[in-house]
Amino acid sequence: MPRIIKQRVEFEGRVEERNVVIEGDDLPVWPAGERFQVIGTPVTRVDGAQRAGGTARYTADLYPAGVLHGAILRSPHPHARIRALRTSRAEQAPGVRLVLSHRNTDAIPWYNGMSRIFDTELRYVGDEVALVVADDAAAARDALDLIEVEYEPLPHVIDPLEAIRPGAPQVHPQGNVLGGAPERYARGDVEQGFLAADAIVELDVTTPDVLHHSMETHGSVAWWEGDTLVIWDSTQHIFGVRRQVAAALRIPLDRVRVLSPFMGGGFGGKNNAGKHTVLAALASRRLGRPVRIVFTRAEESQAAGKRPRSVQRIRVGARSDGTLVAIDYWGVSSIGAYRAIGTPLAGPATELYACPNVRAETLNVFTHTGPAAAFRAPGYVEGTCALECAIEALADQLEIDPLELRLRNYAEADQVLGRPYSSKFLREAYAMGARAIGWERRALTPRSPVRDGPPRRGLGMATQLWGGSGSAPAYAEVRLNPDGTAEVRIGTQDIGTGTKTALTQIAAEVLTLPVGKVTLSLGDTDFPYSPLSAGSQTLASCGPAVRMAADEARRHLIDAAASLLEVAPEDVRLEGGRLFVAGVPERGLAIAELTGQIGNFTIAGRGFRGPNPDGVTIRTWGAQFAEVEVDPETGEVSVLRIVACHDVGRVINPLQYQSQIHGGVIQGLGMALREEHVTDPETGAVLDLGFDAYAVPRITGIPEIVALAVDKPDPIANNLGVKGVGEPPIIPTPAAIANAVANALGVRVTSFPITPAKVRAELGRRA
Amino acid sequence: MPRIIKQRVEFEGRVEERNVVIEGDDLPVWPAGERFQVIGTPVTRVDGAQRAGGTARYTADLYPAGVLHGAILRSPHPHARIRALRTSRAEQAPGVRLVLSHRNTDAIPWYNGMSRIFDTELRYVGDEVALVVADDAAAARDALDLIEVEYEPLPHVIDPLEAIRPGAPQVHPQGNVLGGAPERYARGDVEQGFLAADAIVELDVTTPDVLHHSMETHGSVAWWEGDTLVIWDSTQHIFGVRRQVAAALRIPLDRVRVLSPFMGGGFGGKNNAGKHTVLAALASRRLGRPVRIVFTRAEESQAAGKRPRSVQRIRVGARSDGTLVAIDYWGVSSIGAYRAIGTPLAGPATELYACPNVRAETLNVFTHTGPAAAFRAPGYVEGTCALECAIEALADQLEIDPLELRLRNYAEADQVLGRPYSSKFLREAYAMGARAIGWERRALTPRSPVRDGPPRRGLGMATQLWGGSGSAPAYAEVRLNPDGTAEVRIGTQDIGTGTKTALTQIAAEVLTLPVGKVTLSLGDTDFPYSPLSAGSQTLASCGPAVRMAADEARRHLIDAAASLLEVAPEDVRLEGGRLFVAGVPERGLAIAELTGQIGNFTIAGRGFRGPNPDGVTIRTWGAQFAEVEVDPETGEVSVLRIVACHDVGRVINPLQYQSQIHGGVIQGLGMALREEHVTDPETGAVLDLGFDAYAVPRITGIPEIVALAVDKPDPIANNLGVKGVGEPPIIPTPAAIANAVANALGVRVTSFPITPAKVRAELGRRA
Repeated sequence: MPRIIKQRVEFEGRVEERNVVIEGDDLPVWPAGERFQVIGTPVTRVDGAQRAGGTARYTADLYPAGVLHGAILRSPHPHARIRALRTSRAEQAPGVRLVLSHRNTDAIPWYNGMSRIFDTELRYVGDEVALVVADDAAAARDALDLIEVEYEPLPHVIDPLEAIRPGAPQVHPQGNVLGGAPERYARGDVEQGFLAADAIVELDVTTPDVLHHSMETHGSVAWWEGDTLVIWDSTQHIFGVRRQVAAALRIPLDRVRVLSPFMGGGFGGKNNAGKHTVLAALASRRLGRPVRIVFTRAEESQAAGKRPRSVQRIRVGARSDGTLVAIDYWGVSSIGAYRAIGTPLAGPATELYACPNVRAETLNVFTHTGPAAAFRAPGYVEGTCALECAIEALADQLEIDPLELRLRNYAEADQVLGRPYSSKFLREAYAMGARAIGWERRALTPRSPVRDGPPRRGLGMATQLWGGSGSAPAYAEVRLNPDGTAEVRIGTQDIGTGTKTALTQIAAEVLTLPVGKVTLSLGDTDFPYSPLSAGSQTLASCGPAVRMAADEARRHLIDAAASLLEVAPEDVRLEGGRLFVAGVPERGLAIAELTGQIGNFTIAGRGFRGPNPDGVTIRTWGAQFAEVEVDPETGEVSVLRIVACHDVGRVINPLQYQSQIHGGVIQGLGMALREEHVTDPETGAVLDLGFDAYAVPRITGIPEIVALAVDKPDPIANNLGVKGVGEPPIIPTPAAIANAVANALGVRVTSFPITPAKVRAELGRRA
Repeated sequence: MPRIIKQRVEFEGRVEERNVVIEGDDLPVWPAGERFQVIGTPVTRVDGAQRAGGTARYTADLYPAGVLHGAILRSPHPHARIRALRTSRAEQAPGVRLVLSHRNTDAIPWYNGMSRIFDTELRYVGDEVALVVADDAAAARDALDLIEVEYEPLPHVIDPLEAIRPGAPQVHPQGNVLGGAPERYARGDVEQGFLAADAIVELDVTTPDVLHHSMETHGSVAWWEGDTLVIWDSTQHIFGVRRQVAAALRIPLDRVRVLSPFMGGGFGGKNNAGKHTVLAALASRRLGRPVRIVFTRAEESQAAGKRPRSVQRIRVGARSDGTLVAIDYWGVSSIGAYRAIGTPLAGPATELYACPNVRAETLNVFTHTGPAAAFRAPGYVEGTCALECAIEALADQLEIDPLELRLRNYAEADQVLGRPYSSKFLREAYAMGARAIGWERRALTPRSPVRDGPPRRGLGMATQLWGGSGSAPAYAEVRLNPDGTAEVRIGTQDIGTGTKTALTQIAAEVLTLPVGKVTLSLGDTDFPYSPLSAGSQTLASCGPAVRMAADEARRHLIDAAASLLEVAPEDVRLEGGRLFVAGVPERGLAIAELTGQIGNFTIAGRGFRGPNPDGVTIRTWGAQFAEVEVDPETGEVSVLRIVACHDVGRVINPLQYQSQIHGGVIQGLGMALREEHVTDPETGAVLDLGFDAYAVPRITGIPEIVALAVDKPDPIANNLGVKGVGEPPIIPTPAAIANAVANALGVRVTSFPITPAKVRAELGRRA
């Protein structure tokens, strides 16, 4: 019986009050020490052969009969007004079926009302001007050149620090600061705190614009079945795309179906529908045929979102025994031309350590560049660079081991929201990681810079703090077929993290079936609602619903077996796919025998994932340790080893846990040492349109990565005791590497990426 | 809580004991007089624009990227053995990708073990010999000629009466009679009965082979997604196709998904998977690409099933007051080369009238012709031709009005199974129909044949008896979206009858929403199980499940509203899409406001359709009245008017009820006067490979059709009080027309179709 209550709900650091529905009793959490058959075992991906063998059908692989191809004309100016636009030559080009622009398209609001699907004011190089739809992709692209546009160039601003100066060109009429003012947080009295400090460290830290560069670019294929719109979309949230597209087209939700059965990575860059999604739907409606719009790699660089650059200053003060007394944080995030929510840069500084006096100020600044997007732990990777580098610098100044300093300031409770954590096994992660890396080998950072001699080794570490609690609601369905196989349906999406495999394991565990007898289907809004796959929340949102659905089916199996065996349900056991009378194992039958006997009468279950427990904060925790070798002559940094140990609750699949650690560490390593998305401040043009110009990590630069897990269930977070591991592994990697470089050379580079040139420059500056 | 009980289940006249599952209390039947907003109103088809406008996607419309096309080589002999088969020339033909035959394909059992997917003994002209798969359909068909087959012709038999003679060529080793013996039924003592008779009529009746000729021919498109097989199939039972194909390929059910979102007619001819379905799956697995096999119209005539011809003899005896004392029935059904179940020809004769002494014998005879299939009321159309012509001949002999004779022998209870009917409003149907046609105008049939003069008019009638109770199980799901629209999902199929519209109406009624705010999806085994769409059972099977699912959602809506409005649930009313406090209509909110407030928390319901009530027989009833004009010079019969009045329980949609009546009457008229599928007895060849040679009715020959409905809910059959109207309207049409012809001319043609030549011959024979 649904009951409605009000609850505070958090996501990406924002808290709001919402009506939430309670649907009845949840199952008790499987306790620590519970013995499993499938959970906790390294099951290989249930769709691994499909993904690796090329038979998985991604959105970009879909060419329905009669499909037409769309290409988008994009602004060449960082800021301009369209004076005139003529499409007649393009419309007459061979194969061209349709040209859409502001002249023949409704002014559909986009970017939370900051713009429209086709705006006449363009705010970055890449902003959408027109769409050409043609018989093939080449014809569509060729016709882009035939669209005649008269632009009136307007003043622009690329650098966020310039953008906040008085008189800077305005990106939006409301000004260049999101919300009109900095986001502020304070507890205690920071000035008084610093007065009590024996040591103070202040660092200026900058992080670059970084691109997601998922293997699959953004894309949508749309068609209409009667008045129902069907969209295949490369998205992290099929239900979100449904909501956004329905709103844009002003059609009811029941007339939009979104599918994403396979998805080639998102990392936060595909949290929302794109303009291309709506354009594919609009063009398909006009033409009565399917329309496919898939980004080129260059478009992916230009217009698909980025982790926005940050400029940060942090000051930390401590007593001589290491006790923190004050943290003062200031950060600027350059959110590009369009972003409705800010970057939670201050998260780590305000919450990670026990500290009575904390002040933080974050400015989210519009610039005439491509829109920022969430990117794997937005804000927290950047904020950890600032905080954890400062902490290690402080430790060196105090001559206290950096791990010991961290332990002395261990936060037992959530000081920001003033409540306990559901669980925190960060001490365990510190201990396991330190042992594995051999932390005792770390010497104090040399007091003077090491400018020559052979390559020097260094050790550094950093801490990870993040959410990953999962969110409500999520629903799942389980049914058993007459041959005893099971099917699970859930409207989530597997963005590459292994959701399908982990959820299959959960259903198999409950039903005591082998994984091969369970088929899980996802990626379709015809299936039960599930939330956005972001915020490391998918497993902890969907897993408990799958468990509950499987458990209802399990109980129905037991009831049915009791009826056939003519005993009470409480006397029936289910083990190894077999139902039998307790104590009389020979009196029983296999699940398949039972379901076979009842034919098409379906044993089924439905599961619900309700709101998180009230009054506690649920967080993931972890630590990474880096060992590097730095050549003082060249400034070249080689990462030798990363040890990662995270507390993400119970681990459902250690192999997939390891994959997430590997992926996160590698992505963090790219940001630490190599990656930087470059926009020309003069022209606003993106200078890295492909992998030739943008330096993602290569296999030759990947160190040994040791993935350790605390693997303790959270005792109250949800019925599985799980949290998420999607984002945690990237969070501490750049800071840990930076700390290891500092430990090796005695100079601290706080401008990411830490290129050889910057290392050499820093050594030079300290000469 | 599922509980398993044993129940006798009937389908097409067969009774078997099965385990069935009881899942809890059903809803009470909506009583007669219940006031509705949507039910009972002539809602136009929710998918009418799609179907009529050509945008509905049927299986034959599906061309997935990379699809290959299959063509089937068929036996040119009615009976032969394959001595040798060489495919190398075909394999080398341009565009050919694969040739499958018995030489490279597993011996998968087919036709209940009577044959294999590729048999080396061929039993009719059209039996499958090989499959060619090529880049396009023309290449595949062209390559068929390049397959070299050496056949050893074997003796064959086409006529069923020849097939039961000693020494006839054998179709199967077990002999030519299905089951080895006639199906027999008896009650009372027929010989004693006839001794008590004052009048006896004996008729020889034959009915022709008739083809279904659905608008969409048989077809399947299959592909593999990893180890999951996806099949689009033009079928009346997606779950049945799933079961059959999984068994044939020996793969688990959870790895087969069958879709049929639009279906272009079946009439019983698509109750099962075809060999082409399995072949598409096998070929797709070998080639790693989608494979499409869609029958040509000629294949549809040759190998897609037929209503098998019947040879019947009936003798009825009555006292002078019209009381029936004996019925003796004998019938032969020619079931072709492969059919596992017999044709229930004796159904009407044994059950329709109160009669203490009845005997029936039916022989189902294999012949070397295409396999018989169910065809809209199999057996009952043919059996009604025999019984109802005999009854009207008897009435004339006794000089009793034929309707009066029927009423004097009205069966109040089921004499075959010895139990009451759930409801029987046949008297009402007789009265309404008789009034509408002006039955009082019928004079006694002329005692001597009318051989010349102007065209003569005649009136005739016939009674309809059929099942249509629906069957268990069926399941449905309903969910409400945040914008207050509703979605229904159910794994049934709309074979053209309007299932989608009727089920949408039921959900809309319960939720008090307009039909346009409800979207119903079907035709996908990912949706909840539903039975075969045949036996007039779809509405009565699926409708109650949809009502229950919508009702659960309605109760949850009320509970949620009670929580928001802070009153008890029993004080909340739902009317016109609005939830409000009883007696305080202004204190409330629209469904969309409620669902909007709870966002993605889903109000949902699941419904179940359980077994039929025990101990009663559920039947549909009806009567049709025909007025004809017959030209005694030419023998030409013109049907002027058909009045049809049926008792099929509550009518959900009077417009669709009318459509079913129109369709059934027209199909019956074709069988009465025009249609006959012809197989050459010498060569076994089908002589009507297209519509040029096979005379389906044309629009110019369609009479006025008056569709009346008794429209009284069955008080116990199911929670809606509905039964089915799929088959009833065809059942009495040929008999009513035949009776009208007899009434006009004084001669009785009992060989269907009643062609002008047969009328002239009968007049001549009686000269």
